[in-house]
Amino acid sequence: MRNIKLIIEYDGTNYSGWQKQPHQTTIQKTIEDSITKITKEKIEIYGSGRTDKGVHAKGQVANFFTGSKIPAERFREAINSVLPKDIVISHSEEVDESFHSRYSAKGKEYRYIIYNRRISSPLLRNYAYHVPQKLHFDYMKKAVNDFVGTNDFVAFMASGSSVKDTIRTIHNISLEKDKEIIQLKINGDGFLYNMVRIILGTLVDIGIGKIDRDAIPQIILSKDRQKAGHTAPPQGLYLERVYY
Amino acid sequence: MRNIKLIIEYDGTNYSGWQKQPHQTTIQKTIEDSITKITKEKIEIYGSGRTDKGVHAKGQVANFFTGSKIPAERFREAINSVLPKDIVISHSEEVDESFHSRYSAKGKEYRYIIYNRRISSPLLRNYAYHVPQKLHFDYMKKAVNDFVGTNDFVAFMASGSSVKDTIRTIHNISLEKDKEIIQLKINGDGFLYNMVRIILGTLVDIGIGKIDRDAIPQIILSKDRQKAGHTAPPQGLYLERVYY
Repeated sequence: MRNIKLIIEYDGTNYSGWQKQPHQTTIQKTIEDSITKITKEKIEIYGSGRTDKGVHAKGQVANFFTGSKIPAERFREAINSVLPKDIVISHSEEVDESFHSRYSAKGKEYRYIIYNRRISSPLLRNYAYHVPQKLHFDYMKKAVNDFVGTNDFVAFMASGSSVKDTIRTIHNISLEKDKEIIQLKINGDGFLYNMVRIILGTLVDIGIGKIDRDAIPQIILSKDRQKAGHTAPPQGLYLERVYY
Repeated sequence: MRNIKLIIEYDGTNYSGWQKQPHQTTIQKTIEDSITKITKEKIEIYGSGRTDKGVHAKGQVANFFTGSKIPAERFREAINSVLPKDIVISHSEEVDESFHSRYSAKGKEYRYIIYNRRISSPLLRNYAYHVPQKLHFDYMKKAVNDFVGTNDFVAFMASGSSVKDTIRTIHNISLEKDKEIIQLKINGDGFLYNMVRIILGTLVDIGIGKIDRDAIPQIILSKDRQKAGHTAPPQGLYLERVYY
C-alpha cells in the first residue's frame, strides 16, 4: 500500500466540520467519498486535526493508504475533478509509510480575522468575526506577546476536552490592523481544543476593556477557563499550515 | 413624501442580480420587501444601476419615497433588522426630493479581483475570477492606461444593450498585484453594460498573450465588440462607490 499526503484548502461554511459523523456532511467524508470514486477502494483519510463547523483551511494536511497505481502527484487533479468547489486539493505526493498527518506534525499555524466596524459586512459574514465595539488595538497588540512560550494553556481549552497534557509552546504570535480588518497569526507546536478561538476572544475582551490588558500571565497561571475570555466564533479561523 | 437615500453592501452570490424580475430573488425586491415590513407601505426603490447575478457591492446607492415618520438615520438599523445577512444597509439619510440614485449620479467606482494561481481557491470561488494561466502582469499594467480618457467605448459593451450614447469618460484606472491577487480599480462618469467585465477580460487576454499589449487604442477605435476580449465572470466584480 502507498501512503499519499494531501494538502487541502476548504471553505468550512457549508460543512459540519472536518470529522466524520453520522448523518452530517463533513469535509473528511466528502474527500473520502471523492477518492473512492477514483480508486474504487474503501478509503480512510487521516487529518492533522479536526476543524470545527465553519472553520476554514488553507493548508490542512491528510494522508491515506491506497493500492491504486495512479501517480501520486496526479491524485490532486483527479480528486479535484470530483470534489465540490468549496474543497480543493492543492498538493499530493507519496510519503513514507510511517508518515501520519496527525502524529508526525511538529506544529501548526492559524490565522484569525476580525472585522471591526459598527455595521456588519455581508461579504465577510462567513469569513471573519464581526466585532462592532471600539477596540483598543494597542492593548491587544501588547497583550499578544504574553502568550509566547511554553505554558500550561488549560485556561484556554474548551471544557469537555479529555486531553491530559495541556502544556503547549507558542512560537510566534502577531496581530496586525489594516483599516477595519485585524488579523492574528499564531504558530505553535500544537493547540488545545478551541485554544485559538479562546485566545482571540480574550484579546477582544481586552480590546473592549472587559479584561485587564496585563491579565494574560495571571490567567495562564490560574489554569481556570472562567478567567479567560469568550470563545470567538468559528468563521474567522483559518488553519494556514501544518509543519512536519 | 420624504426621499430616503441608502448606501448598500451585498454579497451577490445568492441573488439573480439587483433588478426586480418575476419569480426571481433579487436584491432590489428583497430590500423593498424589508422596507415594506417596517413602513407598511408599498415601496419602490431606485438603484444607481443594475448589477448582474453574482456581482457584489460595497457602495450601491438607492433611494425611496416614504410617508413614514421614522427618522432617516434610523432606517439603517430598522431595515437591517429584517434583511437577510448577505445584504446590509451601511447608511441612511434624508435627501432633497429631486435626488435620484441613477439620474443624479456623477460617476462610479468599481473594483475587480483576479485570483491568479494554477489551482482554484475554495475560499474565493464566489469572490474572484480564477485565472489559472501565467499572466504577463507588466503587459496588463501598461495597457490599463490606454483606457483613460473620453472615448466611444461601444467595443466594450455587451451586445444587446439599447444605449444610444456610448461615449464615457474613465478618470482613473489602476492595477495592483499582491502575490496571487490582482486588483483593478476603475473610476469613471458611467459604464456601459458589462463594460468593466469586458475591459477586465481584455486585460486578461493581454496577460496571456492572446491580444497584443498595444492593441487597446485600436480596439476602441474599431468600435467592434469582436475585437475586444472575453467578458470576465461576475463574481470578481464589486460596485465600490457611486459619486454625486
